[in-house]
Amino acid sequence: MNFNKLGQSLCTAARSQCGVVELKHLNHVFKNTSRASSNTMAEKFKLPARYGAGEKSVWVEYIQLAAEYKPAVNLGQGFPDYHAPEHVTKALSEIATGDNALLNQYTRGFGHPRLVQSLSKLYSPLVGQKIDPFNEILVTYGAYEALYSAILGHVDRCDEVIVIEPFFDCYDFMIKAAGGVPRFIALNPKKTSDTITSADWVLNEEELKGLFNERTKMIILNTPHNPIGKVFTKQELELIADLCKQYNVLCLSDEVYEWMAYEPAQHIRIASLPGMWERTITVGSAGKAFSVTGWKTGWAYGPAALMKNLQVVHQNCVYTCCTPIQEAIARSMEFELARFDSPDCYFRALARELMPKRDLLIETLRENGFKPTVPESGYFIVADWTKLANKIDLSQEPDKYKDYKFTKKFAKETGVLAIPPTAFYSEPHKHLGEDFVRFCFIKKDENLCLAKKLITEWNSKKSN
Amino acid sequence: MNFNKLGQSLCTAARSQCGVVELKHLNHVFKNTSRASSNTMAEKFKLPARYGAGEKSVWVEYIQLAAEYKPAVNLGQGFPDYHAPEHVTKALSEIATGDNALLNQYTRGFGHPRLVQSLSKLYSPLVGQKIDPFNEILVTYGAYEALYSAILGHVDRCDEVIVIEPFFDCYDFMIKAAGGVPRFIALNPKKTSDTITSADWVLNEEELKGLFNERTKMIILNTPHNPIGKVFTKQELELIADLCKQYNVLCLSDEVYEWMAYEPAQHIRIASLPGMWERTITVGSAGKAFSVTGWKTGWAYGPAALMKNLQVVHQNCVYTCCTPIQEAIARSMEFELARFDSPDCYFRALARELMPKRDLLIETLRENGFKPTVPESGYFIVADWTKLANKIDLSQEPDKYKDYKFTKKFAKETGVLAIPPTAFYSEPHKHLGEDFVRFCFIKKDENLCLAKKLITEWNSKKSN
Repeated sequence: MNFNKLGQSLCTAARSQCGVVELKHLNHVFKNTSRASSNTMAEKFKLPARYGAGEKSVWVEYIQLAAEYKPAVNLGQGFPDYHAPEHVTKALSEIATGDNALLNQYTRGFGHPRLVQSLSKLYSPLVGQKIDPFNEILVTYGAYEALYSAILGHVDRCDEVIVIEPFFDCYDFMIKAAGGVPRFIALNPKKTSDTITSADWVLNEEELKGLFNERTKMIILNTPHNPIGKVFTKQELELIADLCKQYNVLCLSDEVYEWMAYEPAQHIRIASLPGMWERTITVGSAGKAFSVTGWKTGWAYGPAALMKNLQVVHQNCVYTCCTPIQEAIARSMEFELARFDSPDCYFRALARELMPKRDLLIETLRENGFKPTVPESGYFIVADWTKLANKIDLSQEPDKYKDYKFTKKFAKETGVLAIPPTAFYSEPHKHLGEDFVRFCFIKKDENLCLAKKLITEWNSKKSN
Repeated sequence: MNFNKLGQSLCTAARSQCGVVELKHLNHVFKNTSRASSNTMAEKFKLPARYGAGEKSVWVEYIQLAAEYKPAVNLGQGFPDYHAPEHVTKALSEIATGDNALLNQYTRGFGHPRLVQSLSKLYSPLVGQKIDPFNEILVTYGAYEALYSAILGHVDRCDEVIVIEPFFDCYDFMIKAAGGVPRFIALNPKKTSDTITSADWVLNEEELKGLFNERTKMIILNTPHNPIGKVFTKQELELIADLCKQYNVLCLSDEVYEWMAYEPAQHIRIASLPGMWERTITVGSAGKAFSVTGWKTGWAYGPAALMKNLQVVHQNCVYTCCTPIQEAIARSMEFELARFDSPDCYFRALARELMPKRDLLIETLRENGFKPTVPESGYFIVADWTKLANKIDLSQEPDKYKDYKFTKKFAKETGVLAIPPTAFYSEPHKHLGEDFVRFCFIKKDENLCLAKKLITEWNSKKSN
């Protein structure tokens, strides 16, 4: 038997529909070995192989935890516990009962016309590229579905995807569901002083270069970065851009925290770098931009040739997005575009609103033995908790990783819930996240003050 | 080389992540043959094989058509062109700007607690089974995503899925995206008189039996049926149920038109038949139930063991659904549950409201040379147009199928847009749909009257 020919058959078969056509001469073998023992329901209806073991998400677990234990302050999941801008919620309220009955019915599948038009107006000047609203923008069910459509739409079996750790946990899952192979590289703090910022977390250049090869289909960039808060610098982005161009790689840039860079940090869109528009898909989020995470609306934009693949996935899994929500976001976007250069523009006001919250939480953490990384962006703080190890007994916690043990015990003892960052690392790199905990600070001042009180009381009790 | 072992490797490889682990001894072959010529962007970033050619959906094409040609009356896509029930839209309006800021933020991923609880109250008595709101119901981004999660969550490579034609076109696409093999069987009219109803469209029992085998994973049932309007009888459902039990097959029952059966037709939920709860996933839709298709909210319910797989897919592609919309649907559902036995309940009122619309369109079609199937349910009419063939010149229409030609030319000549049903047939069975056209009648009376006027004028002009 010719091994080269067999290899080709395998590759083609793996990429085809069940070998109905392509396996041809191997078809009888395939049939003979298919599922002899699939008689019981549990066996027959198990999860398809592409989903692995279907592992539980940290979100499902910690939201369930919050529902059961009702922590005094939930600094876990990233959403504001206070009101979104009034013009945004009012828009939805008016649309729902407005004269135009059609705004409660199906709209265009790839994006409500009014919304894609306002997104084109927003982003065209920001990336220095006239964006065609109807072929270069896809409105999705949250940035989450934008990531899904981009990953499933471009990653084929055996394609490699470079992922920077810590990462939004869904990346890994989506890559594997597409049959791709994630290749991980971690951001690491280059110093360990008590006053590090997110800018101190960096990639090793040689390690990054070593990951690119002929099989690399995509790199997923997340800037501003969750959970570190890092805003990638021009120099860092140029390195990534050069590698993408050299190896013909698509850059999927998750920029949902684009409006939350704290001065002097400045968010740079990688699609705006020379030669990058044509190979970048950028993801944004109305939930983050307007503080309405529950509205589940996001988008992807990029060159039509790359966006076509996303359209196919989108059309296949959700088909179209919620009309009144899209109309409300379109109106809100138009409202902000009209005052875009004013400090009142919510896209600027939001960072000003968040900065004192960040500083309050940093202070709380520093005063109580944590070693937080000061984020240049976003609404999360990653803090090293290991100096508190002698104050908290984790020996009875059944979890595998120390950060899971810590966050659970800490929540029980203080009433403050946070998220374990090992959820954002690949299995072999979990140890890099174990010393940390992620807190969210887009919360009412009264809740941040309560967190301070609870953590301080806990710490002083433990110190006595 | 041992063919049986090779077959096992192939099967495992096809079902695994890129053979990283499983292909082991064949790994070197795999690598040697992978992508030598993927240098150009167009080549490298083509659609993954699992999506085939990524064919355009009929919806994208006909919605685009409607946007460009602005037909006088659009009887194409299935949505009402008039207001949804006031209590429903008012609920959303109030929630958006209400006191509870959290109703605009993320909620539980598998379904907003208030909504899954009301769904459990609604369906438990209807299927004769206490439905656990937290483990046996999944709220999805429209029934569309429920179908996607059910199909992707259960269909593995090489699994066969039985699909009844005509079918909602996404079924086919989703099955193939999962690597499954659709096996089609068509409903056919058992008589051809001028007064046939949807009950005259039946499956051939022997043909159906012949499709079930050891590789059958799932059958997709759609009752009430789109586009025929058929309400499957108890006897027909029992045949399907018996085959499902005999071959250990999952029944995915798409029941989004559940509240639109016209008396005396009665919708029966297949999950309520003996032994079927444990092997049925039922799909419902708030968009259809409350006439708010643009709200994109649906659900799936079934036994926890089967629902787990859907949760994994859902968590992977959209993660959670829109909070204010879910809360509004929950309140609307509670409102209807409180008057469930009253004729005012919208779930009953809707069919009463639709019946005269159906009859008006049937009359219009009959008077003008069509041979419509009178639907027992839903809001579509499938009509044979071939008696009009001599009145309409299709020779210049570039489409492949006669129904595409007819609907486009008919729209240009009359201003009335409808949908070509070959979109709902597999390639080898397209001819079964070519003589038909699908009209939607959940439209304002004035628009149905306008359609009557336009079609009648066209017909009398053509008769002169």
